[in-house]
Amino acid sequence: MSLDGFIADEDGGIDFLSAVESPGEDYGYSQFISHVDTVIMGRKTYDKVLSFGIDFPHAGKKCYVWSQSRIGKDKNVDYVQGDLTGLLSSIRSTPGKDIFIDGGATLVHALMEKNLIDQYIISVIPVMLGSGIPLFRSGRPAEKLHLIQSLSYPKGLVQLWYDNIP
Amino acid sequence: MSLDGFIADEDGGIDFLSAVESPGEDYGYSQFISHVDTVIMGRKTYDKVLSFGIDFPHAGKKCYVWSQSRIGKDKNVDYVQGDLTGLLSSIRSTPGKDIFIDGGATLVHALMEKNLIDQYIISVIPVMLGSGIPLFRSGRPAEKLHLIQSLSYPKGLVQLWYDNIP
Repeated sequence: MSLDGFIADEDGGIDFLSAVESPGEDYGYSQFISHVDTVIMGRKTYDKVLSFGIDFPHAGKKCYVWSQSRIGKDKNVDYVQGDLTGLLSSIRSTPGKDIFIDGGATLVHALMEKNLIDQYIISVIPVMLGSGIPLFRSGRPAEKLHLIQSLSYPKGLVQLWYDNIP
Repeated sequence: MSLDGFIADEDGGIDFLSAVESPGEDYGYSQFISHVDTVIMGRKTYDKVLSFGIDFPHAGKKCYVWSQSRIGKDKNVDYVQGDLTGLLSSIRSTPGKDIFIDGGATLVHALMEKNLIDQYIISVIPVMLGSGIPLFRSGRPAEKLHLIQSLSYPKGLVQLWYDNIP
């Protein structure tokens, strides 16, 4: 997110991320994603990813897209609706790796309303966007957090890792 | 601010700061304030400080309170109105130390609308408040920032220092 809490500008654009682009630097993503076997995405995020015209980045993982209108599946993902508590309980009931919530704000809010997120990894980009799509919306329960680590990178990105304290 | 960007709960309460209270730890405040000779506060913040019933913490410094209704001065501060561009130009035109913007959100927003803040020191408290008074409001111009340093403390507070890049 930008320092002022936005994950995209008002048109959904993410050009501000170019401020921290650096050849060969993935900010820990490849290591992170190697611990993940299940991905849940918001519908808008999924459509955004598809719009890039690249290979689906989560191929090989079990992938769910949370949508109120689409049902069934496509070649990449299963569509899921409604309260995600049951889905998460089901996934967690069998052995596996971590579950990655790959945006966006609507899905994150729905999960936080139910206190369903165990760990937050927040990358703070050195920019004030001024306006846009906020990562966090108001009207959720409070959560106590435990700082695991804070990583600072040469381009000015700071990555904050927290566990949710039950 | 809380990780989700709030500086107080919906009633203006700051009990969440107790999560990082630690005897003898002031998170750099005494060193910071020694470089400051002028303080600008929002009116609500000033009233909040007075409500604590303690000695005015900025005694000995030139102190302005930004208010749309109060004029003149009291024993601690001068009241100022309207656009702060002129006041800041005036203060900056004579040699002196740093100017500290001691909250709150309304004043910060007014200054950021005019891109009048040179440096940000943001202390991120390890808590999600869920709702409350946001530090940053929408509808400002974008700003590019340069990360000066990121400091991580044992209680989980992370302090982010940025210069505003003109």
